[in-house]
Amino acid sequence: MTGPAAPTPSALATLHPLPLSAVRLHPDGLLGGWQERNATATLPHCVDRIGAHGNLANLRRVTGDVDTEFAGMWFADTDVYKTLEAVAWETGRTGGSSEFLTDVAALLEKAQEPDGYLNSYYQVDRRDQRWTDLGFSHEMYSAGHLVQAAVAAARGAADDLAAGQLVAVARRFADLLVRRFGPAGAETIDGHPEVETALVELYRLTGHRPYLDQARRFLDLRGHGRLGEGRFGPRYWQDDTPIREQDEAVGHAVRQQYLLAGAVDVAVETGDAGLLAAAERVWRAALTSKTYLTGGQGSRHKDESFGDPYELPPDRAYAETCAAIGSFQTAWRLLLATGGSGYAEEMERLLYNGIAASTAVDGRAFFYSNPLQLRTGHDGSHEDTPSQRLGWYSCACCPPNLARLMASLHAYAATGDARGMQIHLYAAGTITAAGRTVQVRTDYPWDERISITVTEVADGPWTLALRVPAWCRDVRLAVNGSPARVDVREGYLRLTRSWRGGDQVELVLAMPPRLIAAHPRVDAVRGSVAIARGPVVYCLEHADLPVTLDGTSFEELELDPASPLAVATGDDLAPVTIDVPLRVRTASADALYSAYVPAERGGTPSLTVPAIPYFLWANREPGPMRVWIPVAAGNALPDAHGKVRGTTVSRDGR
Amino acid sequence: MTGPAAPTPSALATLHPLPLSAVRLHPDGLLGGWQERNATATLPHCVDRIGAHGNLANLRRVTGDVDTEFAGMWFADTDVYKTLEAVAWETGRTGGSSEFLTDVAALLEKAQEPDGYLNSYYQVDRRDQRWTDLGFSHEMYSAGHLVQAAVAAARGAADDLAAGQLVAVARRFADLLVRRFGPAGAETIDGHPEVETALVELYRLTGHRPYLDQARRFLDLRGHGRLGEGRFGPRYWQDDTPIREQDEAVGHAVRQQYLLAGAVDVAVETGDAGLLAAAERVWRAALTSKTYLTGGQGSRHKDESFGDPYELPPDRAYAETCAAIGSFQTAWRLLLATGGSGYAEEMERLLYNGIAASTAVDGRAFFYSNPLQLRTGHDGSHEDTPSQRLGWYSCACCPPNLARLMASLHAYAATGDARGMQIHLYAAGTITAAGRTVQVRTDYPWDERISITVTEVADGPWTLALRVPAWCRDVRLAVNGSPARVDVREGYLRLTRSWRGGDQVELVLAMPPRLIAAHPRVDAVRGSVAIARGPVVYCLEHADLPVTLDGTSFEELELDPASPLAVATGDDLAPVTIDVPLRVRTASADALYSAYVPAERGGTPSLTVPAIPYFLWANREPGPMRVWIPVAAGNALPDAHGKVRGTTVSRDGR
Repeated sequence: MTGPAAPTPSALATLHPLPLSAVRLHPDGLLGGWQERNATATLPHCVDRIGAHGNLANLRRVTGDVDTEFAGMWFADTDVYKTLEAVAWETGRTGGSSEFLTDVAALLEKAQEPDGYLNSYYQVDRRDQRWTDLGFSHEMYSAGHLVQAAVAAARGAADDLAAGQLVAVARRFADLLVRRFGPAGAETIDGHPEVETALVELYRLTGHRPYLDQARRFLDLRGHGRLGEGRFGPRYWQDDTPIREQDEAVGHAVRQQYLLAGAVDVAVETGDAGLLAAAERVWRAALTSKTYLTGGQGSRHKDESFGDPYELPPDRAYAETCAAIGSFQTAWRLLLATGGSGYAEEMERLLYNGIAASTAVDGRAFFYSNPLQLRTGHDGSHEDTPSQRLGWYSCACCPPNLARLMASLHAYAATGDARGMQIHLYAAGTITAAGRTVQVRTDYPWDERISITVTEVADGPWTLALRVPAWCRDVRLAVNGSPARVDVREGYLRLTRSWRGGDQVELVLAMPPRLIAAHPRVDAVRGSVAIARGPVVYCLEHADLPVTLDGTSFEELELDPASPLAVATGDDLAPVTIDVPLRVRTASADALYSAYVPAERGGTPSLTVPAIPYFLWANREPGPMRVWIPVAAGNALPDAHGKVRGTTVSRDGR
Repeated sequence: MTGPAAPTPSALATLHPLPLSAVRLHPDGLLGGWQERNATATLPHCVDRIGAHGNLANLRRVTGDVDTEFAGMWFADTDVYKTLEAVAWETGRTGGSSEFLTDVAALLEKAQEPDGYLNSYYQVDRRDQRWTDLGFSHEMYSAGHLVQAAVAAARGAADDLAAGQLVAVARRFADLLVRRFGPAGAETIDGHPEVETALVELYRLTGHRPYLDQARRFLDLRGHGRLGEGRFGPRYWQDDTPIREQDEAVGHAVRQQYLLAGAVDVAVETGDAGLLAAAERVWRAALTSKTYLTGGQGSRHKDESFGDPYELPPDRAYAETCAAIGSFQTAWRLLLATGGSGYAEEMERLLYNGIAASTAVDGRAFFYSNPLQLRTGHDGSHEDTPSQRLGWYSCACCPPNLARLMASLHAYAATGDARGMQIHLYAAGTITAAGRTVQVRTDYPWDERISITVTEVADGPWTLALRVPAWCRDVRLAVNGSPARVDVREGYLRLTRSWRGGDQVELVLAMPPRLIAAHPRVDAVRGSVAIARGPVVYCLEHADLPVTLDGTSFEELELDPASPLAVATGDDLAPVTIDVPLRVRTASADALYSAYVPAERGGTPSLTVPAIPYFLWANREPGPMRVWIPVAAGNALPDAHGKVRGTTVSRDGR
């Protein structure tokens, strides 16, 4: 997670991250509430799991403190590092101390080889095999996560001793990488990108140029087939085309996104406009033909990879949590580099859908894969496609990834410097930039109103930039009680004035429920619509069907696009639901295939079912769910104005 | 391949297979032509590949005749056995001899351990590991294919010496299985069913009851979790539910079908009505919710498995060739057991679509996975999803499976005994049953006419039963030039008379092109139609688009269901094509997701593209293909009679 601005700002950086202490999210708000839940439930759960599953023991056997067998995946150390990173962000966020942080920092220092190497899979049982299988070993991937934990400790943690230990451990490992794989060393790369972005972060922290150079070198070495075929061919690990020449998002989705994040980091710090343009190009290519409505990416279970353009099945969506987090990370970096509102747009979409859906309401269970449909009769018996979230996974990369994102979430809400503040994510809380502080009061995304009060000022004019989401067609603004003209440029409302304490801005982002269709090339959801309100995608879940309907009726639901959607107050689970008028299709003849018969004009809806936010699905009894709802055929045609009576349709709404 | 009738016919057998010599398919006909191509191209190709890829060398290193490393998959022996089986059927079919058969029979006899064990993966390098990993080892699967090769040699081959050797080898291995895994032995099963059907075939050949008992024992032991979790959970290898209690087709599609085939074999020979009913139930469950229009099965690449009910994506259809062959095998056995026309129906559908598509027109390249859609921009770089057929695969199970099916294809065309003959598959050729011979002249499936001449008769009345496919809505019959009443009962026209030499039956199965829709629960092809004529499913291929259309236009094609389809004479590739009126959708706005807008009434079609038989796709330059074509929205509604003007629509046509 990119924290404070680079010590040597590049001409390619447009926006500037704020210090971690500059933003505080209120626990009463949704985002602040997520941070609280992360602190009180998810993070302790992760700490407990890496104990119970032997990840910590793996490191203690390196130090000789325990005598156990190695447990888990060969990259099991990364579950520890990511949890450690989350703890580091968390102690920074709330100012507390952490015995875990202290203990693990000491453990890692003790476990590290004198030459800087650190990897519990290799240090005891396979001492002569280090670096021999970089396509699969994840050794540099592991080093990268270690480095990111150290950077988080340095930026966030209150415990300087532990932070100092971790940074020293990270630097020794990074120095080893530079010695071994630097310009005088082997020309090789890790099958799983991660170390690139980590090394740039370490460079930002230390100012030590070789770390940046090494990250760039790894990027340059990739894309020429050095990794060979592996199990899935060179595209899987983005080794068939150099990134500067890529024009398509390919292969394993997490690898692709981590690679892009590293590419933007290197580009920004080295002023490499061509590399930045390539990263933008690839990221956009994913966005325009290989991304789910939830922001999720990865259409294929077999190799956790992107599919062909427009290959986006909702039921077999892989949409790995780590890929959504990776996309968020790349988007953040691109936002900083370019200021482009589309990147903040995607961060928001991911946050409220693909990412939020990954954690159960109690914070202690997670989805690895995030499908947009679960069928009646679904086989949820295997951890690859469970019907509900699980407490852990044999490959446990997702939960600690969620934990570290949530612990640092406040760092992504806004950017700013002496010239102004840019608010990208709306959440109750306070934000400070260059001596100016604003207090944000809102119940976003449930409520359309955002109230911003300037509580601290400094001399001179200052621009407050407020993002207006692309889905929003009706924006209203008032400053100190008076309606103000709405002038949205490149996705932001910019208010430049010499602010005074107590100045108040009221923003209203109208969020009527809307129907969404996919590009016609997305065959998998042809003839279906999805529902959204504001940034939140909604879904139907079996638990909300009237109990009078029988077992397979969920599969026979059809939506009448001419009947209005109605916003409703939800219950404990969902603050806002959307009442959806539906019909139940007459049970079709048994035949799987039969003569085509043009659809009859549909009848009137016979029931209303409350759609809930997609991110809240699978928190009640297990059962089918769908984001994409078949449209009842042969229904009302649009009127002369192209509007379908009764529906509020936004022109190009997302 | 079940050949001659069981020595002790069970009350559960309804139809009787004919001796291999009883049916000869004319090479001028499509099916006979496939057999010729198999003999002259495919089979020599397989023989060549198992030499070049080291499969034969694996066995020669067991005998000490070569000193090489083991090559290929751990079940590489089965490529040899299946090729051998094909060669055995082929020598029986054409009466020739085969050096390959002679040599390999001698090689296997020499390689076999004294106790009967034979497996080149274990006999040299892992002598102490046999039987230690039956979930994954495929040791019994391998034995099963060896046994089937021996049975084929005994039934078909002209070379009695080689056949004798092979049967002896097979019996020694089968006796070992009985000793080790019989009632006094270990309670264990192989992760991949196959040995069950093979042991029943060996029982049919030899009359040795313990082989049948062992097959039944393996079935009984399965379904109780003995194999553990493996990689994909117990459903993958059908070990979570005993087959007698199964009501859903689950897991790896080939394993499921091979298991079902074995179950029907055991049921028929032991008179186990409950087991037969279970096999029927599971096979039908697959048919009604988990089978592609081509007959293909397996919706998931990751574990080559069935998906959830109605989860049938055309693009990511796995539809493994071996699964289609397995379904064909099970259907054949159920046809023999029950006489149900639906089984012959499915055999035909598989043969002309899912199975036929697997082989290139030149007979030397194959599809492993048989998708129903290939997109523009498809990544065909990996053997998992190539854009064209490949000469071989790292797992080469499919080509030899095709070879052995094609070499014995004539055995499936008809059944019969002294009471009558039942013709299930129409093909030019001659068929003899109980002293009566008929000559079939037809250009089916291109031509609707089938002409049957009785050329040999015997005393007494005799019933000629002719299958009338369910897709056929208009059947005409003439006997000796006079129109006859068409009386179809349970899928067959039955003509009972005292036939005289020269008697002629003319059958006309009208086959206008028809549009097919899927059950509405098949989300993946909602709003699309497929085209078929007779048993043949058709597709659009990029190669047939006018060159004036640009690169992505294939993805924008829409069909107008109100415009008529027209049959046309094809070219070298396809004897009959179907002209499909299409529109090219206005290039949609770039946005992947946008506001739902009800579809406008479509315009008139602007071009006609010839659809070709799906089984002939991917024989020209690589490019996109689709079976399911989006229907242009908002088009003509049906008239008062429920008919859409201009289209011949069959009521429930398949």
